[in-house]
Amino acid sequence: MSKPRIGWIGLGHMGRPMATNLLKAGYALTVYNRTRATAEALGVAIADSPAALARGADVVITMVADDASQEAVLFGPDGVAAGTRPGQTVINMGTISPILSRSVAERLDARGVAVLDAPVSGSVKPATDGTLVILVGGDAAAVAACRPIFDVLGKRTFHFGGHGQGATAKLAINMVLGTMLQALAEAVVFGEATGLDRDILLDMIAETPCAAPILTLKSQSLRRRDYPAVFPLKHMAKDVRLALAAAGGVEIPAARTVSASFDAAERQGLGEQDVMAIIKLLEGTAADRG
Amino acid sequence: MSKPRIGWIGLGHMGRPMATNLLKAGYALTVYNRTRATAEALGVAIADSPAALARGADVVITMVADDASQEAVLFGPDGVAAGTRPGQTVINMGTISPILSRSVAERLDARGVAVLDAPVSGSVKPATDGTLVILVGGDAAAVAACRPIFDVLGKRTFHFGGHGQGATAKLAINMVLGTMLQALAEAVVFGEATGLDRDILLDMIAETPCAAPILTLKSQSLRRRDYPAVFPLKHMAKDVRLALAAAGGVEIPAARTVSASFDAAERQGLGEQDVMAIIKLLEGTAADRG
Repeated sequence: MSKPRIGWIGLGHMGRPMATNLLKAGYALTVYNRTRATAEALGVAIADSPAALARGADVVITMVADDASQEAVLFGPDGVAAGTRPGQTVINMGTISPILSRSVAERLDARGVAVLDAPVSGSVKPATDGTLVILVGGDAAAVAACRPIFDVLGKRTFHFGGHGQGATAKLAINMVLGTMLQALAEAVVFGEATGLDRDILLDMIAETPCAAPILTLKSQSLRRRDYPAVFPLKHMAKDVRLALAAAGGVEIPAARTVSASFDAAERQGLGEQDVMAIIKLLEGTAADRG
Repeated sequence: MSKPRIGWIGLGHMGRPMATNLLKAGYALTVYNRTRATAEALGVAIADSPAALARGADVVITMVADDASQEAVLFGPDGVAAGTRPGQTVINMGTISPILSRSVAERLDARGVAVLDAPVSGSVKPATDGTLVILVGGDAAAVAACRPIFDVLGKRTFHFGGHGQGATAKLAINMVLGTMLQALAEAVVFGEATGLDRDILLDMIAETPCAAPILTLKSQSLRRRDYPAVFPLKHMAKDVRLALAAAGGVEIPAARTVSASFDAAERQGLGEQDVMAIIKLLEGTAADRG
């Protein structure tokens, strides 16, 4: 089976290295990005609009930041939907809400287009290395057909069920991740309040059964007290909010508390900094560095 | 330098393998345990009381469960204090409060006895393998003198400062650990509320940057829905309470929420089960299995 022509939308931190990996793997790629210069840097065909991109592609992959961008790029003026034809596949790899994932699937199904939600776990390095973890919701046949694409982008693909279930699984991960990062920040704040040296404390945590890769990684910024955005705090705040919304009334009190903290951090102007800047909220130093 | 004679108090889940490792390393050991049969199983000299044990030892090590037991074993009738002489060392390796650690040091210092608080991170397996992480508070000279003992019991020893700082560091770890385990439980509860398969969800988490050794380990009981006590929930509840008390007024909202959950779980009769049984509180199934 020849490789499908891929239309790629969204060339941010994550989208760029992912698209590059597909290119290296021999896929014919057309791209669309709101900022055209970013698309030009990739050196591949550029579509003038999402609709034009869809017209020339077999599979459209979106990697955009949030529900509003996803809705606009698919169903806005000159959106993907305007350019689709039956038999195409649209894969949404950004972290969007399960509700929008299902709504997208419903609307594109009506046009004969297969839809998968396939958000990823992992940040820029695994995106670059092709070692993301991919969480898929949608029909098994479409998942099977797209498997070669997922195998280029990631090390493991988990199929969680119908439309929206990949998005839901991503929220579960980010709930855990956000809670763990807040726990690490709280340990540092606790340590400083009780006279524990920050570096020794972080060295120690790295030796315990708590030592998740993400904690070891984020300990580096805690040591430097510097939080350049790898995963912007505002995205974590959004994901934990989405998780709470999806959870309905179930008992997840730590996630609820962490959500309140991230929301407060965003209100204090920390949204564009890395998620680990949550420590500034706890330290009361948010104002130091807007 | 010849090896000091060690008096060991407390042969529970952790104390027994730790004492066994010292025995294997060639230390002359006398033991005391509230339940004498447990001491007899070890096949070494048994003291009739903590005071008698102290009289025959150079270094006394306690590995008891909580502040009340620690206070009783040191300062109760026929306690360690009654048998000490100047030049001895007492090492407290249980997780007791920083406040009691400092109070013990003060009272034994007055008798010319060096005191270290040296709680450990790691459960039964690292205790058995001699790969615990040891967190020490006390004078540098005493830490140096006891280093060979720590090297038998653990893979890393961190010296955090004066009396009570080892105990404080342990609370920091258990704050993080308790929060992480609650986060894992909440992810499972979230997953079941939103239609994610529990096994696939746990498989997925094991592939993400959240995958701490403790989460991978505890995922096994979550899969089996069975929580035999490795680290009893009541001990975690106690440690997180102690952490909050030591923290004073600092901002650690996730720890505060997790503490409330563990306290509620204990009130629902889950204290003797493993810490991972916290999920029963969230599921509302605590009553299923007292």
